[in-house]
Amino acid sequence: MKHTLSVLVENKPGVLTRVAGLFARRGFNIEGLAVGPSEDPRLSRMTITIDGAEHPIDQVTKQLHKLINVVKIRDLDPSGMVAEELMLVKVSAEGDKRSETLQIAEIFNAKIVDVERRSVILRVVGSAAKLEALLELLRPIGILEIVRTGSIAIGRGKG
Amino acid sequence: MKHTLSVLVENKPGVLTRVAGLFARRGFNIEGLAVGPSEDPRLSRMTITIDGAEHPIDQVTKQLHKLINVVKIRDLDPSGMVAEELMLVKVSAEGDKRSETLQIAEIFNAKIVDVERRSVILRVVGSAAKLEALLELLRPIGILEIVRTGSIAIGRGKG
Repeated sequence: MKHTLSVLVENKPGVLTRVAGLFARRGFNIEGLAVGPSEDPRLSRMTITIDGAEHPIDQVTKQLHKLINVVKIRDLDPSGMVAEELMLVKVSAEGDKRSETLQIAEIFNAKIVDVERRSVILRVVGSAAKLEALLELLRPIGILEIVRTGSIAIGRGKG
Repeated sequence: MKHTLSVLVENKPGVLTRVAGLFARRGFNIEGLAVGPSEDPRLSRMTITIDGAEHPIDQVTKQLHKLINVVKIRDLDPSGMVAEELMLVKVSAEGDKRSETLQIAEIFNAKIVDVERRSVILRVVGSAAKLEALLELLRPIGILEIVRTGSIAIGRGKG
């Protein structure tokens, strides 16, 4: 089962290393990680996506709580959260490939953010499943580069 | 000056710790970090945003090259890249605040992804400056939670 952890940490050098190190020592491979400012300028919020099938997740969250600079941890419930990911993907535009790419982009509500003679860059937001479906269609055209943020998530409602 | 590093790494436990540790040891505070799959299933791509004003960035990139599991590093040229960030922001909707929030959302082309009696969640994509401008307008209404991905960036053209 996939877990989405939302971790509020102090905005200091070394915090990321300690958090990442904890997962690495336990053999967890982090699938996605996004770090950015939070609503409090002293704190950053990390969204960590991991596969909890192999190891019990509660041991890791307990260890996380003990780390200095870690303020708050939530293991988000998939049914009660909004999760989204951002992707930039550069696709080949040689020959008649460009029109095919533009057609697929429209279906997925992807925005064209750059067009050159030999390549097109698409920007798309959505669930990991949506991004995978788009990539599946773009692969035969020729994917040159993929940059993804990893999922970010927020609990629904005021709580 | 702000730097955006695009780092291609092997998809193995411990890589993130080593990369983050390198920055921490040199006193760099990572402003934003996004990690996700790349076009090669064996590799992940990290986008790291740092303020290079205090320390010379070339020393860090040299050290990064020496790390095992680091495949490729690019210090992206701001004038030749597309950079975007994703943010989810939960805003108070008590009283007549909701209509004000929806108005601001429309101006910023933000999508409403959740509405409850006491809160609204907006999803927005854009430059860090655009996200900051939106937050500036939402602050008097009442921001409950901010989750951001950190910027991701891709070089323009086929190169």
